[in-house]
Amino acid sequence: MTTKTHAPMDQFSSDKGELMIAGKTVSQVVQITGQTPCYVYDKSVIKANVDRLRHYFPDISLHYAMKANPYAPLLCYLSDLVDGLDVASGMELGLALSTSTDAHNISFAGPGKSIKELTMALASGITINVESKTELKRIAELSEKLDCNASIAMRLNPDFELKSSGMKMGGGAQQFGIDVEQFSDLLELLQHPNLELRGLHIFTGSQNLRPESIISAHNNIFALVARLIEQYDIKLTHINIGGGFGIPYFPGDTPLELEPIAENLKKLRQEYSDYLNNCEIILELGRYLVGNAGVYLCEVTDIKISRGKQFLITNGGLHHHLAASGNFGQVIRKNYPLAVATKMDATELETVDVVGPLCTPLDILGSNMNLPKAEVGDIIAVYQSGAYGFSASPRDFLSHPHPTQLLL
Amino acid sequence: MTTKTHAPMDQFSSDKGELMIAGKTVSQVVQITGQTPCYVYDKSVIKANVDRLRHYFPDISLHYAMKANPYAPLLCYLSDLVDGLDVASGMELGLALSTSTDAHNISFAGPGKSIKELTMALASGITINVESKTELKRIAELSEKLDCNASIAMRLNPDFELKSSGMKMGGGAQQFGIDVEQFSDLLELLQHPNLELRGLHIFTGSQNLRPESIISAHNNIFALVARLIEQYDIKLTHINIGGGFGIPYFPGDTPLELEPIAENLKKLRQEYSDYLNNCEIILELGRYLVGNAGVYLCEVTDIKISRGKQFLITNGGLHHHLAASGNFGQVIRKNYPLAVATKMDATELETVDVVGPLCTPLDILGSNMNLPKAEVGDIIAVYQSGAYGFSASPRDFLSHPHPTQLLL
Repeated sequence: MTTKTHAPMDQFSSDKGELMIAGKTVSQVVQITGQTPCYVYDKSVIKANVDRLRHYFPDISLHYAMKANPYAPLLCYLSDLVDGLDVASGMELGLALSTSTDAHNISFAGPGKSIKELTMALASGITINVESKTELKRIAELSEKLDCNASIAMRLNPDFELKSSGMKMGGGAQQFGIDVEQFSDLLELLQHPNLELRGLHIFTGSQNLRPESIISAHNNIFALVARLIEQYDIKLTHINIGGGFGIPYFPGDTPLELEPIAENLKKLRQEYSDYLNNCEIILELGRYLVGNAGVYLCEVTDIKISRGKQFLITNGGLHHHLAASGNFGQVIRKNYPLAVATKMDATELETVDVVGPLCTPLDILGSNMNLPKAEVGDIIAVYQSGAYGFSASPRDFLSHPHPTQLLL
Repeated sequence: MTTKTHAPMDQFSSDKGELMIAGKTVSQVVQITGQTPCYVYDKSVIKANVDRLRHYFPDISLHYAMKANPYAPLLCYLSDLVDGLDVASGMELGLALSTSTDAHNISFAGPGKSIKELTMALASGITINVESKTELKRIAELSEKLDCNASIAMRLNPDFELKSSGMKMGGGAQQFGIDVEQFSDLLELLQHPNLELRGLHIFTGSQNLRPESIISAHNNIFALVARLIEQYDIKLTHINIGGGFGIPYFPGDTPLELEPIAENLKKLRQEYSDYLNNCEIILELGRYLVGNAGVYLCEVTDIKISRGKQFLITNGGLHHHLAASGNFGQVIRKNYPLAVATKMDATELETVDVVGPLCTPLDILGSNMNLPKAEVGDIIAVYQSGAYGFSASPRDFLSHPHPTQLLL
């Protein structure tokens, strides 16, 4: 049984049988990286993603959630294109501060921030997305100790869910944010003179490919925010409505349609303009900005047939690309889109498993895939590898060489 | 719904309400490591594992598969206790050669070894477990180029399976080893004057808790080896029968009974003594030697209740301990055994989720667990964390501080 065909990965072209990345053949790219395996990110694809978003969402601020890919050159490139950065740890904060982005446009989310991290955040003047009452108290105390103001946004766990989402991060019981119904418990604390409540952060989920689900979440978010503004007479300078925009990975996935989402957001801003009062609306996106811009390249090192099944053994695998191996939150393993990047024109296909060098049956990059007939030395490209690839993989597992990274 | 109770983790005691590790309270241990999160490994538990194996398998060589835990001090400690080391990459080979183990007793397995790795292996004189015909050819060619002999063992993919195994690595179509029925294709190549065929390596699977499955695999292995010896008149100095000995992780798991396995192996050696001719029999174990000797320690940093559910937020999680989060080859997430290591005597229990600081709902260490009522600052211990913990985790994901390691 072979898997269904993936959508064409038309962010990359091919020429004379080779995958083209940033105007170079994959063979040239590997000459530049000096080795396989490697991750290569294409600036022009990132730029096209930003341009598409700017076209549909001209009045909305774009933030990059750098946890998707914290590779410093890529972060610096994106920093010049977007309006702000969102960080998830103290080390990410340090990197973000080192880019062209003003501290004012950096926010820090995540449960259980350490005192050290809160100190870094206060000293640098970024906005802290507050995840619990305990954290709010800690920030107030620290701001007294450091004699500074604290720019904060409340991360709220809404009383609705984002439907059809890869991962739900809002609604029901959550480790993220503060349940909206507990918001009133915070009002007294929020009166602390050092605390400056700037915004609300409502993040409902990630990797969603259904516009109607995102539209429904946006409708609920705007209604919730209006209710809170009215009920508690709070003044806000921004509302971070999260992201959740998905990209196609698996057979049957189609690219997310942005137009209906944009139309709806325009309508919502008009409808709630009395409440919003020119408040900045922020879309926080990670995967959507960089996911399709990256490929993971590895090399076929051996080909073997075991009991009728053909295996392409490569020098890359699970240790470099956990998500593509199916071990990162997938209940049922599905194949990422793959290509034999040095045989793009081949018409003779064969059914193969693409595996890595680790001594574990989990080390699979592709299972029962129809791919061009490959030889030892051919380059395998794993598409959609720009987000949650390099940084989300157990690179030391079995102590093989690490992949390199390159932004072209 | 709360999970069923785990088996008691009686390799560690407790004293005055604190978990004891290597004769110290968990609070003292954390003072020594200087931080949470950390991995701590207890020498005495490792030693007890080796002693137990020596008791039951006095005439069998014990090898440590260092991919389970390559922490250098632990590797050196084990090197003095066992008869050999098994490596899975060039970097592991370098570490293994740096211990007290002779090159003669080091073997290197894994599909798709690079030319560089094969060169390292030949130059150091260790035994290469050959995974394919292509690899055998490469070794022969390299041995000519380097003008040296190559000590090899053939890794065979048997024509039977290990039943009830956590992971199957033998039988059916496999990326590992050479199908036994292809063995005859190798005979001509094996005549190469530089190739010294020392042994056979038959690895059927891992993490098995059923003696009857392991016994059945051993019966099949010995029958297969005798058949090959007879059919091809090969002379062997060793047979690596793999490992696969499991340890209890989840509710309902019970420790593996070694006695029936040992009795059966004794019987097999007698039954096949004419074929074996004093051949060394090697058990290659990773997890079984170190898994129960390690704990992962992290600290409660926040406690919150969201819609009736209580969350203990810790400074440790998926990025440090992927397997405990349920994202390493588990189809259905199950809880690793956990304790509030600073409240070992508490009788008041509550149902909690133990989570980490990452902005992803995958960051779970324990779900719906009955644990003693904890406070901020309490230490959480994740048991059975000595194997496939630190090295098998995506430690840079979200750029939080790495855990430290300590062998006591």
